Amino acid sequence: MSDELVAALDIGGTKIAGALVDGTGALAAQTRRPTPARAAGSTVMAAVLAVLDELIASRQWPRVVALGIGSAGPVDASVGTVSPVNIPGWRDFPLIDQARQAVGAMPVTLVGDGVAMAAAEHWQGAARGCANALCMVVSTGVGGGLILGGLPHPGPTGNAGHIGHISVDLDGDPCPCGSRGCVERIASGPNIALRAVAHGWRAGPEGANAASVAAAARAGDRIARASYERAAQALAAGIAATATLVEVELAVIGGGVAGAGEVLFAPLRRALREYARLSFVQELDVVPAQMGTDAGLVGAAAAAARANGLTGFGAAAGSRPGQRVGQ
Amino acid sequence: MSDELVAALDIGGTKIAGALVDGTGALAAQTRRPTPARAAGSTVMAAVLAVLDELIASRQWPRVVALGIGSAGPVDASVGTVSPVNIPGWRDFPLIDQARQAVGAMPVTLVGDGVAMAAAEHWQGAARGCANALCMVVSTGVGGGLILGGLPHPGPTGNAGHIGHISVDLDGDPCPCGSRGCVERIASGPNIALRAVAHGWRAGPEGANAASVAAAARAGDRIARASYERAAQALAAGIAATATLVEVELAVIGGGVAGAGEVLFAPLRRALREYARLSFVQELDVVPAQMGTDAGLVGAAAAAARANGLTGFGAAAGSRPGQRVGQ
Repeated sequence: MSDELVAALDIGGTKIAGALVDGTGALAAQTRRPTPARAAGSTVMAAVLAVLDELIASRQWPRVVALGIGSAGPVDASVGTVSPVNIPGWRDFPLIDQARQAVGAMPVTLVGDGVAMAAAEHWQGAARGCANALCMVVSTGVGGGLILGGLPHPGPTGNAGHIGHISVDLDGDPCPCGSRGCVERIASGPNIALRAVAHGWRAGPEGANAASVAAAARAGDRIARASYERAAQALAAGIAATATLVEVELAVIGGGVAGAGEVLFAPLRRALREYARLSFVQELDVVPAQMGTDAGLVGAAAAAARANGLTGFGAAAGSRPGQRVGQ
Repeated sequence: MSDELVAALDIGGTKIAGALVDGTGALAAQTRRPTPARAAGSTVMAAVLAVLDELIASRQWPRVVALGIGSAGPVDASVGTVSPVNIPGWRDFPLIDQARQAVGAMPVTLVGDGVAMAAAEHWQGAARGCANALCMVVSTGVGGGLILGGLPHPGPTGNAGHIGHISVDLDGDPCPCGSRGCVERIASGPNIALRAVAHGWRAGPEGANAASVAAAARAGDRIARASYERAAQALAAGIAATATLVEVELAVIGGGVAGAGEVLFAPLRRALREYARLSFVQELDVVPAQMGTDAGLVGAAAAAARANGLTGFGAAAGSRPGQRVGQ
C-alpha cells in the first residue's frame, strides 16, 4: 500500500466538506463549512479556499499527490467549470483554475456529485464488486452516477447518470429544469410531501417532509403510503430505463428519502418488476446505499486517483469489467 | 491495409443476410435468405447454416479470420444464446455453438442488432467521428445501440441501447413487453398508423402504415401529422433520457419510420428542445442514418473485429475517446 494521499472536496448547496483520503478509503483532517449559497461567486470560492487551506495546513499535506473535487451539478469537467443549480453565484465558474492556484502543480480532477457518490459506493459500499451499477441520491433533488464495465462513467463533461432529470411521464407536471414528468419532479423528498398534502394528508407539528410522510406511512396512513408508492413507481421507471439502456445489474439508493426504508423499497421492488421486463434486466436488484455523508469525499478521491493512475483507491486498482466479483 | 476479411451474419425476423467484409467496409459474397420465423428452431438454424455455407464456398473464404453475428434480440452474448422476440423457435438458442461447428476454430462474436447498427453508423455512417452517440432503428419495432467513449458499448449481454423498451409514459398503454408507455409502444411504425386510424384518419387503397400516414401528413392531413408528432415526442423523451444518463452528443435514426423525413425530424427536433434541458445535453443533435440495409452486416463485422483486436474495421482502429474528430 502506497502512503500517498488524495485531497478531496465535496461542494454542495448546504456545505463544503474537505478531507485527506488514503488508499484504504480512510479520512483524515476532515473539515467543513456552510456554503454561502446565495452570496457572490467570489464569496463561495473564499469558503472553498478556507476549507482547502485547512487541509494544506495539516501535517499529512506533503503526502498529497492529487486533488479531487465532487460538485453539485451541472459541472463541465471538460473545461473545469461548474454551474450548480443551488449556487446561483457560480455560472460557468472556473473552479479547477481557482483551486489550482491554491494547491500548486498538483493535478485537480472535477466530477459531478452523483459520479462521486457512485465511485464511493463502488469502492467501499453497496456496489462493491459490481461491474455495472447505477448509484442514486434521492433527497431534496435526485441525482446519480454510473459504474460501467467496472469503472465510474463520468461522461465527457462529468454529468452522466443524471437520472433525476429524465422524463418518465412525457405529459406530466412541468419540472423546474424545463422538461416535464422528470423522476425528480415525482420522487424527490419535497415532492413526496407536497403530493401527500395535496391529497389530503395533514402533517403533525413536525411539518410536512419526506420523513414525516414516511412515519405516517409506517403507521398505516393510506395517503402517505400512496405518495411513496408513486415516488417508487417513478424511480422504478427511471431505474428500469437506465438498465435497459446500459445494462446495470444493481441500483443503489441513498439520500434522505432512502431513509424511509421499506416504505420506499418494498413498492420500489414491486414496481421494478413491472417496468424492467426484457430478459437482460429481469435480475436487476435495488439496495440501500452504505456510505453515508462521506460518500462525496471518498468518491471525489477515487475519481482523482483514477484520473491520475494511482493504485489503491478502489476503481483505480483495476476492477474486472464484465463480471461481479468479491460478493 | 490488411487483407484479412471478417464474415458477417445479420439475423432478423424477416431475412438472414451474410457477407464477407474487408477493412474498408466493402462487402463481398453477399447472400440472403428469408427467415422461416415461425418454424422450429432447427429449421431456422438450417437457413443460417445455408447462408454460412455460401460464404464458406466463396473464393475469399481463406482470408476470413473471424465471424461476427448481429441478431434480433434479446441476445445473451455472455453465454452465446439468442431469444429473438420474432423467432419463437429460438429461446436461449445456442447460436454461437452451432455457428462455431460450421466455421471451425475461428472466433465468433455475437451482438444485438441495435449494437451492430450503431457500430456500422459509427464506422461508416452518420456517427462517424462522434465519440458518444445513440443510433436507433425506428421501424416495426424500435431498437438501438450506443457508442460511448469512441467505442460501441454492447453491455455485458450485448443488449445495451434498447431504447424501444424504456417507459416515457409510466401510466401509458400496456406494451407487449409487459411494461407501459414504452418508446416503441408510441413511436413504432404500426403504432403511428394505429393511432392515426383511431383518431379518424382514413387510409387510401395502399392501407394504413407508417409510409401512408407520412404521405398524408406531407399533404397536410392534421390527424396524420399529429400521430407523427406524438411519435416524435416519445422519441425525444427517450433520446433526451439517454443523453442525460450517458452524455451522448448525437442521435442517429434509421429504419422505415425515419423515411418520413421532415414529417418526423422537424417535430422531433422541436420536442428534443423541450425534454433535453440540462446544460450538458442542450447541444444534442438528431440526424438520419446513412448506412441503409447493410448496416447490420457492416456492424457485425466491426464488432467481431473489435473483439479480436483486428486493425481497420472502424472502431477497432482506435477512435479517440472524449472528442469528436474528423467532421
